[in-house]
Parts: sequence; C-alpha cells; structure tokens
Amino acid sequence: MNLETVLPAEIERRSFEIIEEELQKRKIVLPEKEKPITKRVIHTSADFDYAETMTYSDSAVDILSDLIRQGADIVTDTNMALAGINKKILAEFGGEVHCFMAEPEIAKRASEQGCTRAAASMEWAAKELTKPTIFAIGNAPTALISLYDMLVADSYRPAFVIGVPVGFVNVEAAKELILTTDIPSIVNRGRKGGSNVAAAIVNAVLYQLKRPS
Amino acid sequence: MNLETVLPAEIERRSFEIIEEELQKRKIVLPEKEKPITKRVIHTSADFDYAETMTYSDSAVDILSDLIRQGADIVTDTNMALAGINKKILAEFGGEVHCFMAEPEIAKRASEQGCTRAAASMEWAAKELTKPTIFAIGNAPTALISLYDMLVADSYRPAFVIGVPVGFVNVEAAKELILTTDIPSIVNRGRKGGSNVAAAIVNAVLYQLKRPS
Repeated sequence: MNLETVLPAEIERRSFEIIEEELQKRKIVLPEKEKPITKRVIHTSADFDYAETMTYSDSAVDILSDLIRQGADIVTDTNMALAGINKKILAEFGGEVHCFMAEPEIAKRASEQGCTRAAASMEWAAKELTKPTIFAIGNAPTALISLYDMLVADSYRPAFVIGVPVGFVNVEAAKELILTTDIPSIVNRGRKGGSNVAAAIVNAVLYQLKRPS
Repeated sequence: MNLETVLPAEIERRSFEIIEEELQKRKIVLPEKEKPITKRVIHTSADFDYAETMTYSDSAVDILSDLIRQGADIVTDTNMALAGINKKILAEFGGEVHCFMAEPEIAKRASEQGCTRAAASMEWAAKELTKPTIFAIGNAPTALISLYDMLVADSYRPAFVIGVPVGFVNVEAAKELILTTDIPSIVNRGRKGGSNVAAAIVNAVLYQLKRPS
C-alpha cells in the first residue's frame, strides 16, 4: 500500500471527495442540506452505515443553523464532545458549550436521586440555562430519556436535540423516544453514535455557516 | 421498543455482557489479554468490525501495561482523546497525557515545514519529552508517518504506538507502515478508528490495572 502525496491543507478536501465517490458507488443520495452533516459524520467514523441511519426531523438543518446563528448555547453529556466542538466559531455567533458531567453538584444530585449523572446534568441544564439550548448527546441514553420525561411532564422544552448516544443498553429505545416527540432533532437510529459523532454534527453546521458564499 | 430497567451502576456491566454474547454469536474468540481492550473499543463504537481488525504486536498488552505502571507519559494527536483518557488513574501511576496540537509553536513549525500540525507535534514530543512515551494517535495518519520517519532515521524511538487514526487519505497505509516496524503497538487495520477509540484503548488498560485482584 503506497502513501498518497497530499498537501496538509488538502487532506480534508480529498477525504470528502472520497466519501462522495463511495456514496455514489453505493447509490446513496443524501438530501442537499443534510449531506454536509452526514458526510462529516462518515468522515469522523469511516463508517458508511451512518448514511442509512441518520434521521433528520422536518427542516432540522435550517432550525439548527438558525439556532446557532442566533447564539444558542449547547449542552453536551461528555467532555470529549465539548473538546471536539469548534468553540471558536460557536463563540463568533454568541454561543457557548456546557458540560456539567464533572461538576461535584451533579454527582451529588445523581447519587441522591438514584439516577445517572447524565440525567442529573440534563435537569440542571434545564433549570439553570436561560437561552435557547441545543442538546448534543453522544454518550448517555439516560440523558435523552431525561429530556423526554421533562417534555412529557411539560416542565421543559429543549430547542433542539442531537441524539447520537452509542451503546447497548436502552440506546436504541431512547433515540426512538425522542423521535416520537415534536422536538426538532437529528438522531442516529440504532446503536451507533458517540461523542465524536455529536461533535461532528455541530461542527458540520458551524462550517456551513462560516462558508464563504 | 421498550426501555430496560437497569441501575446506573449496572449499565456498563450489562453493556459488556451484551458485547460478550454477541461475540459468541459471531463465533469470535478474542485472546484473553486483548479481550478487555477490544471489547471496550466495541463499547465506545457499537461496531463489531473492530473484533476483526484490531491488531496487537507480540505481548502488546503486557508491554503497554508495564509502561503505564512505570509512569510512562502519553502523547495524543487530539484534544478529544486527551479529554477522554482517564487522567486521574493515569496520574496514580505517575503518568500524564500531552496534546500539543493547539500550541501556537506547533502551528508555526507546521507552517514553516509545510507539514501537518500532527507531524510537527510528534517531532516536538520526541524532542521535549524525556520519559518513555506512549503515542495514542486517533486522528492523523501523518502523526504515524512522522513517528515512522524518525524511527527509520534513527533519531527517535517511541516506547509504544496506539495507531488508530480514522479516515480516507493515507490512513490504512500509515497503519501498515507502523506494523512493518518492531515498535510494540496496537493498531486498528483499515480506515476505522478515532479519538474515542484511542481513549478507549488507554482506558481499558488503566481499568485492568486498577481492577481489584
């Protein structure tokens, strides 16, 4: 196997070309607005399964773009997603990323309530944050379940849910719960997802918004 | 699809049980020492392909465990992997994780040399770090190529390479380059990998070392 000579600045462009070629080979046609997002998820995972399982609610990309443009904040359930999201571009629009998972207060509440730290941090975010909030969930299905429960109890309504937890216990069911609601969302059906996928979705939108037109 | 009732503390144990069951269904038998690592990679990706592509050099797990136990440092090529690695347990053994990617000095050197920041930060690590160093590469094939070039030029020898970059340009070839050397390594052959996978491999070893015997 030989190394291809590609200039540093060209690596990403070339990667997206290869992804496009392979999507065409597989005869997968993605809707124009969703395409940069699904392609960036494939770029971060090298997994073309995402082309089949990424699920967008009506006008999801427009709604998410508008929220970011208007300075919405993002709450995530892992410090890895927080590390991966391009906070510099987000800040240019006035937004900020929060992850409450490592806060001692969250561990205390989770232990008192017998719930996961992810669930406790969703409730915390719902109570503390005043701006419209995008939830980018890459790890804990219990975070999605907590958001669903608050919605059904009429106690809180997230502005947008990126529902891409990964795993084997309640992950698929929690994603399906979100898809039964009218919350605008991007969900990856099935077991797959992750903090990297959550960050890739946010970054894809940020890069589209920053693209020279 | 119904939600399963699982106590927060039980979620991870139950996930690993499901992974074990599915490996058995697929008739995949993993070597005992490699099993907790490959299973944690599957846990972080929900992708059983890793059971077929994770590649361990001779005694790789023992060598990596000994290095961590002796306080080796880790260098990674993304802040996401840095965020994902359990730095608390690593510190108990005397080790530290470094990621030089966001240092202004690295951007300057990369631009002067016409190389990627990942390659520049490998050279920087080779020069600056004095302890035995484990390289955990989850993103940039150019980081692996840089390590390979230094080894061939006899200018530097990494103690261990975790080679799991993800992507489409030179990723497979860079992994194969590492596999031609005598550096102890864990490599995921093919296009797949990622910062989450790099962190999962390190954490699997850390959790094994901390396991009550």
